[in-house]
Amino acid sequence: MWLAAVGAALSASIVRADEGMWPLQLPPTVAVHRQYGVELTPEWLARVRNASARLSNCSATFVSADGLLLTNQHCLRNCLAEHSSRRHNLIDEGFLAPARDREPVCSTQVADVLLDTQDVTAVITAATRDLDAPAANAARKKALTRLETACEEQAGNSDPGGAIRCETVALYAGGQYFIYRYRRYADLRLVFAPELAVAGFGGDPDNFQFPRWDLDVALLRAYDRSGLPAHPADFLHLDFNGPRAGEPVFVAGNPGATYRNLTVAQLLEMRDVELPRAILLDSELRGRLIQFGNERPANQRIAQLELITLENALKVRRLELDALHDTQALDRLRHEESEQRARFAALAPSSHEGPDPWEQVARAQESKRRLSLPYAYIEGGAGLDSLLFRFARILVRAADERTKPNEERLREYTDGALPRLEQTLGANIPLYADLETLKLSFSIERMREYLGPDHSLVRHLLARESPQTFALNIIAGTRLGNAALRMRLWNGGEAAVNASPDPMIQLARSIDAQARALRQRYEDEVEAPMQLASEQIARARFAASGTSAYPDANFTLRLNAGSVQGWRENDASVAPFTQLGGLFTRASGADPFELPPRWLSARGRLNPDTPLNISTSNDIVGGNSGSPLLDARANITGVIFDGNIHSIAGAFWYNPAVNRAVAVDTTALLEALRVVYDARALLSELGAPRG
Amino acid sequence: MWLAAVGAALSASIVRADEGMWPLQLPPTVAVHRQYGVELTPEWLARVRNASARLSNCSATFVSADGLLLTNQHCLRNCLAEHSSRRHNLIDEGFLAPARDREPVCSTQVADVLLDTQDVTAVITAATRDLDAPAANAARKKALTRLETACEEQAGNSDPGGAIRCETVALYAGGQYFIYRYRRYADLRLVFAPELAVAGFGGDPDNFQFPRWDLDVALLRAYDRSGLPAHPADFLHLDFNGPRAGEPVFVAGNPGATYRNLTVAQLLEMRDVELPRAILLDSELRGRLIQFGNERPANQRIAQLELITLENALKVRRLELDALHDTQALDRLRHEESEQRARFAALAPSSHEGPDPWEQVARAQESKRRLSLPYAYIEGGAGLDSLLFRFARILVRAADERTKPNEERLREYTDGALPRLEQTLGANIPLYADLETLKLSFSIERMREYLGPDHSLVRHLLARESPQTFALNIIAGTRLGNAALRMRLWNGGEAAVNASPDPMIQLARSIDAQARALRQRYEDEVEAPMQLASEQIARARFAASGTSAYPDANFTLRLNAGSVQGWRENDASVAPFTQLGGLFTRASGADPFELPPRWLSARGRLNPDTPLNISTSNDIVGGNSGSPLLDARANITGVIFDGNIHSIAGAFWYNPAVNRAVAVDTTALLEALRVVYDARALLSELGAPRG
Repeated sequence: MWLAAVGAALSASIVRADEGMWPLQLPPTVAVHRQYGVELTPEWLARVRNASARLSNCSATFVSADGLLLTNQHCLRNCLAEHSSRRHNLIDEGFLAPARDREPVCSTQVADVLLDTQDVTAVITAATRDLDAPAANAARKKALTRLETACEEQAGNSDPGGAIRCETVALYAGGQYFIYRYRRYADLRLVFAPELAVAGFGGDPDNFQFPRWDLDVALLRAYDRSGLPAHPADFLHLDFNGPRAGEPVFVAGNPGATYRNLTVAQLLEMRDVELPRAILLDSELRGRLIQFGNERPANQRIAQLELITLENALKVRRLELDALHDTQALDRLRHEESEQRARFAALAPSSHEGPDPWEQVARAQESKRRLSLPYAYIEGGAGLDSLLFRFARILVRAADERTKPNEERLREYTDGALPRLEQTLGANIPLYADLETLKLSFSIERMREYLGPDHSLVRHLLARESPQTFALNIIAGTRLGNAALRMRLWNGGEAAVNASPDPMIQLARSIDAQARALRQRYEDEVEAPMQLASEQIARARFAASGTSAYPDANFTLRLNAGSVQGWRENDASVAPFTQLGGLFTRASGADPFELPPRWLSARGRLNPDTPLNISTSNDIVGGNSGSPLLDARANITGVIFDGNIHSIAGAFWYNPAVNRAVAVDTTALLEALRVVYDARALLSELGAPRG
Repeated sequence: MWLAAVGAALSASIVRADEGMWPLQLPPTVAVHRQYGVELTPEWLARVRNASARLSNCSATFVSADGLLLTNQHCLRNCLAEHSSRRHNLIDEGFLAPARDREPVCSTQVADVLLDTQDVTAVITAATRDLDAPAANAARKKALTRLETACEEQAGNSDPGGAIRCETVALYAGGQYFIYRYRRYADLRLVFAPELAVAGFGGDPDNFQFPRWDLDVALLRAYDRSGLPAHPADFLHLDFNGPRAGEPVFVAGNPGATYRNLTVAQLLEMRDVELPRAILLDSELRGRLIQFGNERPANQRIAQLELITLENALKVRRLELDALHDTQALDRLRHEESEQRARFAALAPSSHEGPDPWEQVARAQESKRRLSLPYAYIEGGAGLDSLLFRFARILVRAADERTKPNEERLREYTDGALPRLEQTLGANIPLYADLETLKLSFSIERMREYLGPDHSLVRHLLARESPQTFALNIIAGTRLGNAALRMRLWNGGEAAVNASPDPMIQLARSIDAQARALRQRYEDEVEAPMQLASEQIARARFAASGTSAYPDANFTLRLNAGSVQGWRENDASVAPFTQLGGLFTRASGADPFELPPRWLSARGRLNPDTPLNISTSNDIVGGNSGSPLLDARANITGVIFDGNIHSIAGAFWYNPAVNRAVAVDTTALLEALRVVYDARALLSELGAPRG
């Protein structure tokens, strides 16, 4: 089974419908029809595309004509934190807007709806032809910026619903380039979110586990640019009966990243260098945050969001590392790869001299091993891990970049990228000096550890101070926690930034030349040869199988087909459904197995047999959170919020025997909205049957 | 070079004198004479053996007729903590006994001096012949206990100098068994230790680095059983001129553990399972301790010792992991091993049926992967990491074990082992409830993570409490921090322990049956087959090369020869000496590069050219800390306290090009005792030239 899954990326004939995250312009219609007898018509696909939205961190779906978006509670925790007060922690307490005009703005959130896609591979190929790797890399970036700018200029951005945002997208690691046109909604407001204790019941211990009992759902509303509820081109209906066991179910959403087409050299670099390094840092930061939280209740809240996010990432990375220690799976990948390389050599024996692209990727890994530590610490932000420093760097860099012609800029500062940066800087989000100090002290201490106390930058920063003193002083001194000040510096441009006495701005300025130089070196010596070789590999694959294989996930809209099913574990069957009654049985009363008061008092009125969570064979990954579970009619019967523990290895290969997605059943959503939250207006807007 | 080093364990002809940690009954006399022209006479060896002492955690040497022992400051930090008060932290402030009758007792320390060794391999072989692995494992343990008991009974322990302690020792992973007879000094007192800021100058960032500037030395005094200064059979003279560059130097000490004779399957288990798991836990605990220390100055001190020890272990493990990712080195080991296996098959084609011992070791690794997590958490102490729990377990187990015949007991509770347990329990050492809570909360939270929230023991412990609440309650409730109470329970035996209402005792009792069952399973399924196969491998190696190879380190006395030399790093030479002047240059004033006041004010009176630290090619490892650097006449010219960064890979192989030991030069010791500490009585006792 593993072998089939691993090989599947190369040979569409052995792809079962369950595997694969397919771009909507490349839907798996044949496989789905063969396996499930479901017809994915162009109309079905267009409706799903029109109703699907990509949030900044998750996926969502329009579920009403008035812009209601269904997603997960865990996707909206930043917004809940933003609207919490000293007395009310909305992450813990949950939220239900009492009326439509009292839906608070999620000031760092956006929702992008995909309008259409256009293949621009030829443009990129022409722009980079006959150039060496670094020159091709630079030319490619300029061409991508040009394409995006032209597309946005053409749109004119006069649409009252939301601005048109054009993004270039590399599929098949650069085997194909597309322009994706989105309508962006930048005014999202909070409508409903349950309490953390029920949305994330079981906390980190139960995360990625199934059986599971979480009501991880939430609702947002998109507003248009005139401040009125948006009217999306399409929305999908909720079917409050949930799906049946064995029923085919479809997931439309934005899986973040998979690594199924990486070369073995790249996977070994992940296994031996990148992942171990990351989980070591994550673990220490976890320890610091937990201890910080244990100091006093107020700290627990300050660190809450950071800790939850970190623990989730840590579990994913730890289990990805375990997956890469599966020597049988690795051996199979090695075997596949040697076959590909043999085919490559046979097809193009004369036109390719020198090392083949797999060897070039392997050599780029060597450069990566040499450069990745300083790159991560100095340019990548690992060494000065503070939101306030990130603001400072954006302000310093943007001031500099905006003086340049658009296509000469770093890609994250092009005209098309500026509105989102401005939104980030201008958002009046809560910031905690103690938390910023903790993270900055931690990260600079580790920078000293990994780059060494005698590294020039480390000596520069810590010439007279310990990491902790350094962090305390600079966080106490900076005023970048103030959004108005940030906007003054943003609007004031280069002159304002250069004149700023703010110590964080000065810090960002003082290291910028060194950081930029390192970035250039990394791009030339690691990214450029890797990109060129990856495109060659992708072309070789196309020559063998065209687009009958799916590209790796990259946080763009994908469709996946699967069915409601459990799996076999240790000679026992795991059933595909859990029920509300199990939630109460599991609630020991000790955190994180403690239910909210509202739920405890509603217990007697809830039907314990209500299906709560569902296991399905859909092939998903982080980023798919909030994706709908769709039936054959494109009705929503569930909301994806997690995978089982085996789904984490899905980053590298899909194992149909055990890889499962985990969703909330719409039946439980209905029961909760009715019985626990008494959310009548919402139920009516969602078209719920009268109870 | 790597290959030679790796193969060296099999073929003495290619051993350079620098490589190898040789038992004193098996000295590398020929190689040393050939390479260095130095004659290691029986008298030389006997004197060194008589003057060498093994501390509980380190090595040391008698340096005066009145029992003065030279070692490192970092070996005595527990003792310094024991005698600190709220106002005086002796780790930070250092200590110099004002007079001989004011030397405070290090109540958890011992010094063992090796008297002689006796080969008992035949006894063990006879005891285990024809038994299957689990039966052989049990029979072996009984035979070892019998041998130790008989040896100690014969000694009668009437010696006034110190008790005779008999320990069985497995060399060559059980290829040979010995009885080592030691004289144990259990009354050690603190004489001198410099401040942490100079003994451990540079802290964790500089740990395992060279060039280096640390005065990591200290002095203890051994007392006999009548409370008078001990008169050792021999002591060694300090040569206060230090060694010269290129001079041959010898290290006598007790290296803790090397893994040079493990099979590749064992190394891969370390690389893929054991080390990653350990450093993840270490990193999180590091984060918790650092954050705890940042809360308030008092906490910094409470966590100080724990943090230093942890960071040292973390660095070692992290770099051991890096070493095991050296694919070239691994490939060479694989090649060596396949040659050994071929030789094995050729030598004994008929007498061995079934899998060869390497395959048996590999299979035992599979059992280990299955059992090591529950074993570590439930029996190994990883899940209830608290000194108070450790006391409770000792009390509960000892009460039980002492009712059994000696040879039926767990090996750590035999009559010979009891005095040291009693010393541990009875020592009135400082204990901090906050620190115990932190560690217990951390470890039980990780037990829940790794065994899962539904593991029966986890459910039992956390049925109604979160990890933090559990830890807070039990640490607040236990009275085992009181040494007198511990001794009452120790002396009261089974009745007292069973009647104790102490919650920690009750916890230890409640999980003991499960922990013991797990231990038995681990011993039968992992330890037993591994031990049997290792002995077979060792016998095969003896058949090929006898004892011309050295056994892996196991914290018994070893001798190593090397010379004073630097190495080449990144096309530059690292010089073998640093000087006092460099210490002041490096002192930025920010922790951990901050010198003690006494040193700052002495700066003008110190000769900046005084040699401070030395790099030598000696092959050493943790446990060798405090070992003397000896010249050809067995005079002491330095004190080993560390290795360079490349020495950490020495756990697996010795690379003569870069593996270096790091020592304090006796010249700097003299200069410091004279100029900074004005320690006249000490200087006189050490035979220092008048200044």
